[in-house]
Amino acid sequence: MPLPSTYPDPDCSIARALEVVGERWTLMIVRDAFFGVRRFGDFATQLGVPRAILSTRLRLLVEHGVFAHADDGEYTLTEKGLTLWPVVRSLLAWGDQHYAPAGVSRILRHDLDAGLIDGDGRCAECGLVVPVPEIRLERGPGHSGGSAPGTSRLLLEPVTR
Amino acid sequence: MPLPSTYPDPDCSIARALEVVGERWTLMIVRDAFFGVRRFGDFATQLGVPRAILSTRLRLLVEHGVFAHADDGEYTLTEKGLTLWPVVRSLLAWGDQHYAPAGVSRILRHDLDAGLIDGDGRCAECGLVVPVPEIRLERGPGHSGGSAPGTSRLLLEPVTR
Repeated sequence: MPLPSTYPDPDCSIARALEVVGERWTLMIVRDAFFGVRRFGDFATQLGVPRAILSTRLRLLVEHGVFAHADDGEYTLTEKGLTLWPVVRSLLAWGDQHYAPAGVSRILRHDLDAGLIDGDGRCAECGLVVPVPEIRLERGPGHSGGSAPGTSRLLLEPVTR
Repeated sequence: MPLPSTYPDPDCSIARALEVVGERWTLMIVRDAFFGVRRFGDFATQLGVPRAILSTRLRLLVEHGVFAHADDGEYTLTEKGLTLWPVVRSLLAWGDQHYAPAGVSRILRHDLDAGLIDGDGRCAECGLVVPVPEIRLERGPGHSGGSAPGTSRLLLEPVTR
């Protein structure tokens, strides 16, 4: 159900943002991009998303400048896409807080000093808001190790572009 | 299109979070609750959402403990719902950064010292992450003043429970 184009609150930046990323497949695709996924087939395998839907979502994200689609076929987050990191991080923190009875599935660390990153994106060691290329992703106690073969490597790599 | 119940990444807290809030109407409803809306009819008017959809979404949010539905008919954010504030704030900041050519539509201020609140939720005056009840919402330069009569008051009130 799309939002009507004349909904009463056209000024709201949240409404505008949700026109681009307000759909869970879209945010899962963006999440996987932050976790290191680059290729159409890897997104499809990782998410279990029908290829037609994946194709539509990726096209929208490219049109809106969230992803760049290179000649070699790889999809990478643009500068604009990288600025979605606080959205992904805050969703991860909310899910960890309320839906991780076995403990968090992933731990975010500052690669430079190994400090834990809190829900506001700050490193417990140096106190800085950690930029995306310096974030290291580790398995947490609630991780079942159940990623499909060949994809867990991608998901556990440091987030670098 | 629902996510398949056997999608390959059941451990991810983002996936779990998006099962509850991964839909733009849902996040718009939660946004309006932070902005002071409490009654079914006000959500319906404010969002222009069909009442059947609004009803379904509110029921889901009550089931998941994001909203409480009081005997007087009001929907209010629970403690769990209030912890969605960083998600709403980061979506607002992303929209402001990329989809607000006329300037931001809303300004967030720390009610205690009038400091501006940055994209990480920190007050420029006192440096603290501002708790929800201390946030004041003001119109920004990009606000067209076009809210429907009778709703702008709600939307411009300080966020208090």
